[in-house]
Amino acid sequence: MVYSKKPLVGIIMGSSSDSRIMQGASEILDQFNIKHEDQIVSAHRTPARLSEYAKHAENMGFKVIIAGAGGAAHLPGMIASHTIIPVIGVPILVYNDKNAKKSDTSKFSAFGGLDSLLSITEMPSGSPVVSVGVNKSANAAIYTMKILANEFPDLQKKLKIHKSDQHDSVIKESDQLKKQGLSKFAQNKFK
Amino acid sequence: MVYSKKPLVGIIMGSSSDSRIMQGASEILDQFNIKHEDQIVSAHRTPARLSEYAKHAENMGFKVIIAGAGGAAHLPGMIASHTIIPVIGVPILVYNDKNAKKSDTSKFSAFGGLDSLLSITEMPSGSPVVSVGVNKSANAAIYTMKILANEFPDLQKKLKIHKSDQHDSVIKESDQLKKQGLSKFAQNKFK
Amino acid sequence: MVYSKKPLVGIIMGSSSDSRIMQGASEILDQFNIKHEDQIVSAHRTPARLSEYAKHAENMGFKVIIAGAGGAAHLPGMIASHTIIPVIGVPILVYNDKNAKKSDTSKFSAFGGLDSLLSITEMPSGSPVVSVGVNKSANAAIYTMKILANEFPDLQKKLKIHKSDQHDSVIKESDQLKKQGLSKFAQNKFK
Amino acid sequence: MVYSKKPLVGIIMGSSSDSRIMQGASEILDQFNIKHEDQIVSAHRTPARLSEYAKHAENMGFKVIIAGAGGAAHLPGMIASHTIIPVIGVPILVYNDKNAKKSDTSKFSAFGGLDSLLSITEMPSGSPVVSVGVNKSANAAIYTMKILANEFPDLQKKLKIHKSDQHDSVIKESDQLKKQGLSKFAQNKFK
Amino acid sequence: MVYSKKPLVGIIMGSSSDSRIMQGASEILDQFNIKHEDQIVSAHRTPARLSEYAKHAENMGFKVIIAGAGGAAHLPGMIASHTIIPVIGVPILVYNDKNAKKSDTSKFSAFGGLDSLLSITEMPSGSPVVSVGVNKSANAAIYTMKILANEFPDLQKKLKIHKSDQHDSVIKESDQLKKQGLSKFAQNKFK
Amino acid sequence: MVYSKKPLVGIIMGSSSDSRIMQGASEILDQFNIKHEDQIVSAHRTPARLSEYAKHAENMGFKVIIAGAGGAAHLPGMIASHTIIPVIGVPILVYNDKNAKKSDTSKFSAFGGLDSLLSITEMPSGSPVVSVGVNKSANAAIYTMKILANEFPDLQKKLKIHKSDQHDSVIKESDQLKKQGLSKFAQNKFK
Amino acid sequence: MVYSKKPLVGIIMGSSSDSRIMQGASEILDQFNIKHEDQIVSAHRTPARLSEYAKHAENMGFKVIIAGAGGAAHLPGMIASHTIIPVIGVPILVYNDKNAKKSDTSKFSAFGGLDSLLSITEMPSGSPVVSVGVNKSANAAIYTMKILANEFPDLQKKLKIHKSDQHDSVIKESDQLKKQGLSKFAQNKFK
Amino acid sequence: MVYSKKPLVGIIMGSSSDSRIMQGASEILDQFNIKHEDQIVSAHRTPARLSEYAKHAENMGFKVIIAGAGGAAHLPGMIASHTIIPVIGVPILVYNDKNAKKSDTSKFSAFGGLDSLLSITEMPSGSPVVSVGVNKSANAAIYTMKILANEFPDLQKKLKIHKSDQHDSVIKESDQLKKQGLSKFAQNKFK
Repeated sequence: MVYSKKPLVGIIMGSSSDSRIMQGASEILDQFNIKHEDQIVSAHRTPARLSEYAKHAENMGFKVIIAGAGGAAHLPGMIASHTIIPVIGVPILVYNDKNAKKSDTSKFSAFGGLDSLLSITEMPSGSPVVSVGVNKSANAAIYTMKILANEFPDLQKKLKIHKSDQHDSVIKESDQLKKQGLSKFAQNKFK
Repeated sequence: MVYSKKPLVGIIMGSSSDSRIMQGASEILDQFNIKHEDQIVSAHRTPARLSEYAKHAENMGFKVIIAGAGGAAHLPGMIASHTIIPVIGVPILVYNDKNAKKSDTSKFSAFGGLDSLLSITEMPSGSPVVSVGVNKSANAAIYTMKILANEFPDLQKKLKIHKSDQHDSVIKESDQLKKQGLSKFAQNKFK
Repeated sequence: MVYSKKPLVGIIMGSSSDSRIMQGASEILDQFNIKHEDQIVSAHRTPARLSEYAKHAENMGFKVIIAGAGGAAHLPGMIASHTIIPVIGVPILVYNDKNAKKSDTSKFSAFGGLDSLLSITEMPSGSPVVSVGVNKSANAAIYTMKILANEFPDLQKKLKIHKSDQHDSVIKESDQLKKQGLSKFAQNKFK
Repeated sequence: MVYSKKPLVGIIMGSSSDSRIMQGASEILDQFNIKHEDQIVSAHRTPARLSEYAKHAENMGFKVIIAGAGGAAHLPGMIASHTIIPVIGVPILVYNDKNAKKSDTSKFSAFGGLDSLLSITEMPSGSPVVSVGVNKSANAAIYTMKILANEFPDLQKKLKIHKSDQHDSVIKESDQLKKQGLSKFAQNKFK
Repeated sequence: MVYSKKPLVGIIMGSSSDSRIMQGASEILDQFNIKHEDQIVSAHRTPARLSEYAKHAENMGFKVIIAGAGGAAHLPGMIASHTIIPVIGVPILVYNDKNAKKSDTSKFSAFGGLDSLLSITEMPSGSPVVSVGVNKSANAAIYTMKILANEFPDLQKKLKIHKSDQHDSVIKESDQLKKQGLSKFAQNKFK
Repeated sequence: MVYSKKPLVGIIMGSSSDSRIMQGASEILDQFNIKHEDQIVSAHRTPARLSEYAKHAENMGFKVIIAGAGGAAHLPGMIASHTIIPVIGVPILVYNDKNAKKSDTSKFSAFGGLDSLLSITEMPSGSPVVSVGVNKSANAAIYTMKILANEFPDLQKKLKIHKSDQHDSVIKESDQLKKQGLSKFAQNKFK
Repeated sequence: MVYSKKPLVGIIMGSSSDSRIMQGASEILDQFNIKHEDQIVSAHRTPARLSEYAKHAENMGFKVIIAGAGGAAHLPGMIASHTIIPVIGVPILVYNDKNAKKSDTSKFSAFGGLDSLLSITEMPSGSPVVSVGVNKSANAAIYTMKILANEFPDLQKKLKIHKSDQHDSVIKESDQLKKQGLSKFAQNKFK
Repeated sequence: MVYSKKPLVGIIMGSSSDSRIMQGASEILDQFNIKHEDQIVSAHRTPARLSEYAKHAENMGFKVIIAGAGGAAHLPGMIASHTIIPVIGVPILVYNDKNAKKSDTSKFSAFGGLDSLLSITEMPSGSPVVSVGVNKSANAAIYTMKILANEFPDLQKKLKIHKSDQHDSVIKESDQLKKQGLSKFAQNKFK
């Protein structure tokens, strides 16, 4: 089933390197046939785009915006300040990139994602943005579908099937584990 | 305008002492005429109620659940695991209660709310719950209205007026500050 | 000596990937001939199994449950809320898995295990769960035997021998270190 | 019912000021008629007592030791290293004592209990000690009873009644909250 | 000496309650006869003002902007993204306000200022903002004068006198301390 | 355009190994034709050089000093205490150096840069130093140009072009992302 | 016994307000008849005094320097860099001073002493300074005597008596606790 | 020059794997011809050795004990509680060992060394132990020589030469850096 011809969800991120993490969201939405539009909106390098994007999002009729950002992660809160569309923040842990040039010193990670998480959640009263866990872009997509399911009852069924699939896959693995015993199971899995 | 005869939102919290913080959510919802039902559901003291409440919430047709909890804050994530209704977590900072009896040692605060925040956000992939900032129950209520506004366009207008009121109140205070100068303004405000 | 025909200990974990850490517990129990049953019980993906497992554990007569979980580690506390069997939590540090697919972004580690530890220990008054150190599954197994030794005096002897063996192995290494001198000893050990 | 004529549990703490927190444990044990012996054993000011106390505890037949300590909390781990009796650590948050003399600078709190918690849990492999949450001495006592209930089936009933009482008290408060509504409930409770 | 007829410095803050902390900056600038203009610019409640203020600041010829904000402190970084005027951020620790109404739950402090500090400093490469210490608004003002002194050599003299006065005041107190002895000095100071 | 024959900026760092991070600053300054002089000034190994360097900097007419240091990062604050020239601190995260000899134990990283950041920002009132984010040396250089632009209007133009180039490069990448879709874009970028 | 006519120990601190914490050191030294000289040496407000004080200390023949400082605590490390006399750092937690004027914003505490502790300990290889715990000035004095006892065997006896007195006082309190029982003991102590 | 026939310094560590870090201390002492005796004393696996070692150390006439430990680092504080010899703690960061077997889960690092540092410094009043920075064993050795230099004036000269050598080596590298320029210097050093 296709829920709409136009995208229902806007995915934005602060930089192209965040796409490594944020693709977790698009993969889930694709799998559930939720149309989304993807853009890079940098709160700091393209500040004028914040209000432009907010208007664009309202004109497009987006029902949810998923916004990923790392470090001083202002993007989710700033977009949320420009629109009444609900925004889900994805704090991104800047990681050591093995392929980075030696002089690209901005790739050494610090603070373990705490900077991003707090930059997203600790908004003043009156200006809410919500956050999933660090790097949990897939969870932002599933939460998006929970919101959409209020309007698209068909999605409720799909979410229940998804839950049920998760459940079955745990049971299956648990049965293997129980049968093989923990020591053998782990040795097989991590050999 | 009344949006529905039945409550649209369920507010739950882990303990009656959390009501001190969580009333920030009910005040906002009341102000916007959003009906809500309020309960205490303790993940640890009433674990069987988790699935009962989840069923109740689906039967009642709640469109959002706001769940507040402190310390090892399992309630938001556990309710989210039982239902496809979107859950907004409110991490609660356990604080020093001056009126607590001397032997009531559980009231000395530790970890500054970080325990609650991480217990809510760091859910595994597939099981999302989102969080507002520590003690920011009012923000959970405003975010709830952003979700509801997808279905109730009248709420969109109200949210825009709310934004506009916030804006005007900042402008008014800023004009005072600019006129009086910072030193005098602060002395008046905090004398 | 075999202490019972039926398992005395239930080992559970939130996901099959936790088996890498949790096998430290089963190796110790195997070594001491303590029968254990191993399962995967996900607080979030199989929430209904929490109460089922708790009943199963009481029916089986488990005397200790060892529960490992990472991130927002709800499993130990939730199981403890369903049963009066003592539960030992093992906080699991989610680590960078070199073999993970590049898109598997949930494998980048954050918070150094603090999220798991606090999610386990900071339970409200009345609902206790205890924790060993991050990833210290072997310690959970030895602690289990300390509990069992209250009923199986033969285990007391074994635990004393275990302590004594540890002691002797330190003495032996210390004598080598003292004889070779620290610089040479370390060079040999880490060449 | 009296479970034994001799104490089954040893409660120790690093300093007399820890008694403010640790009495939470004795109140619970008293309530359940579990005999306990209480002492101050300072790992740092009475180091020779560590092994003496361990021998005493084994001679007395203690089945659990509850050990509370703050700051660099070595007591639980050091006692655990001297005996095979299971030790439950209670990390104690050093707090600001309003009645402290101005020169008693050791009363200013630092690190929010994290120092105590990590000093207790992060023991090396082979030497386990377990921890409850910061200042959660009552939980240490309830966990103690979970251990004892393996040998004293009567305690199992009592623990189930305790759980059931907790459950009922939550339900009662929840019903009040639901009836009064959150805003009014909180105003009554915190006026 | 008056350095200019128009203000050289813009002081902004996210909310009127920040004026308690930010007046430390205006007091220093007043003392040095540096004209400044003071406003409230909320990144979240008045987002459209960010670019307006930036243009205003450039039109006014401000040479430095001092921007204070607490929690998810986006204001300094967002203003810096809109202008090439150097911005000095002041992270503000949200504190417990004894006079706050009981229901004003946003006043309970969390994270000790770390959220504000990291929200200000951890900007992406290319978009710099600098920070002084938490609540150190006076230092932001003195740093401002260091920048201005590049253009106003007279300020260099004043800064040197300020340094020299600080030095002399330490020497004077040190002489008292040395003469009275530490114990007596402290008793006098903190009786 | 060349802004001066003599260097306008002094770059210093605590150790030669910091040059790996600090070259981010010199590359930016070189690109903008800002002359700078580079030295190693160790607060701890060459303490007498602190005042010598401060005098040298004033004699040279430096308008900004960029000071990078890791661990207990005293260099920025100590230089700032010796001179009225504005100092920009760069906290440096000590990282694991794969090429370090096995015995060079000082290369194992701890505290994620928090030690360096707080050692730089938390200066007492009256003695300001400002900080950019951890390892963000390039940002220190751009901030330097913002300060210099007060005196060299030509730099204002260059900074605006730099901002505009950043903006355009984001737009270009965003257009690619939008066109390809997030999943494909990320797979191409991180294959 | 008087160990020397001239002071053997120099106590320094960064500011007169640190005397509230540092008097814990002088009280212990006075009690043991160890002569000490007390001064304020601010690394930041009197940087030139660092080398002067270091020379003075060597000329006076000080055998230990105790240096207390808060926030970005550079004093212990900077003095240690100027002299070969062993320096003991005392990290000082800046606390909320109830008597502080409302505008004295520097008194709001942040970071719980972690900033001071890391600013003292994390010195580069080759430049050691050691630290006691946060605010533990008394411990710095006792450690000083342990160093001095290498040269003054009479101090060894006194330290052993001190240890023995501590031991006895714990035993005495423990006996009271054991006799009264924990609940009653705590009620008496904290009524 | 040889300062004594018998060792003046005892180096101890909690486990043989700590020798990788602790050899930094022995290398420095060897270089300065300070005799030392090296042992493994595990607070937890060989608790009875704590008092034995303390007596041994006093009989041997050790003037300083250097004690390294990781995790819940009790060793330095416990040894300090048994003797009046000054103890210098070295907190050891447990690190990921690439060569560790996959099942050796105790090698995954957590808490970045903070657990070890706080376990060493936060001793109660009356029981001091001092700490150098995480993994800074070489600094513990140099600090040891500062203590010994009170009795062995010849060491004072050597320490001054050591300081002077450090100074000269910084100057030499700084001259290279200044001459080559930072960008080129760094490229050469890290190519």
